[in-house]
Amino acid sequence: MNSPRIILLAHGSSDKRWCETFEQLAQPTLKAVDNARIAYMELAEPSMDTVIAQGVAEGARSFTIVPLFLAAGRHLRKDVPAMIEELERAHGTSIHLAPPIGENPLLGQAIRDVVMLQLEQTPS
Amino acid sequence: MNSPRIILLAHGSSDKRWCETFEQLAQPTLKAVDNARIAYMELAEPSMDTVIAQGVAEGARSFTIVPLFLAAGRHLRKDVPAMIEELERAHGTSIHLAPPIGENPLLGQAIRDVVMLQLEQTPS
Repeated sequence: MNSPRIILLAHGSSDKRWCETFEQLAQPTLKAVDNARIAYMELAEPSMDTVIAQGVAEGARSFTIVPLFLAAGRHLRKDVPAMIEELERAHGTSIHLAPPIGENPLLGQAIRDVVMLQLEQTPS
Repeated sequence: MNSPRIILLAHGSSDKRWCETFEQLAQPTLKAVDNARIAYMELAEPSMDTVIAQGVAEGARSFTIVPLFLAAGRHLRKDVPAMIEELERAHGTSIHLAPPIGENPLLGQAIRDVVMLQLEQTPS
């Protein structure tokens, strides 16, 4: 249990359809990575607090939060780091905040592939 | 000039770093697709209005907007469709709104790949 537990962090919304899209987005990761979880920053459950409490109870010593955000705005520059500091104190654990997924070049390539598919499907 | 011109639509922000991330995300698509452009919904330039006016001046007859959003919230369900209706009227053109990129399974696969890379880089 020494490798950090992965938490995919989505913004959260009171709109269930919005959360369902993120749950779909998370599926391939949840299947591929042991003990990975999705958590929401606000407006939906499970929260980071819930997921970290559960992980600590199961023996996890550290966590890596991967933001399901395309870019870093105020949330990732200010709100989430402040929440992490508080969560580390509350749960006595170590939490690493990874860059938002959109900063990895793989995302730009996936976007290109989506657009190419889109072009095949759009009637001229 | 009969195939629709692709517009990658990002939310926009007054934070230049935020827009730079989206410009990086758009690069592979802009390289692969003739006449594709990025546009911002608000708070940054170029706007959809600017990009569509330019496209129409260059002879484009229709546009497909691909939202660089992971999921559809209020913006994509209400604000953008209303803006599109207005833009179609103002420019006498046809604009198709594609689903947000996050609804395509390719994105979930890219997220898994990003997380796998992340795991290799995180110290245990």
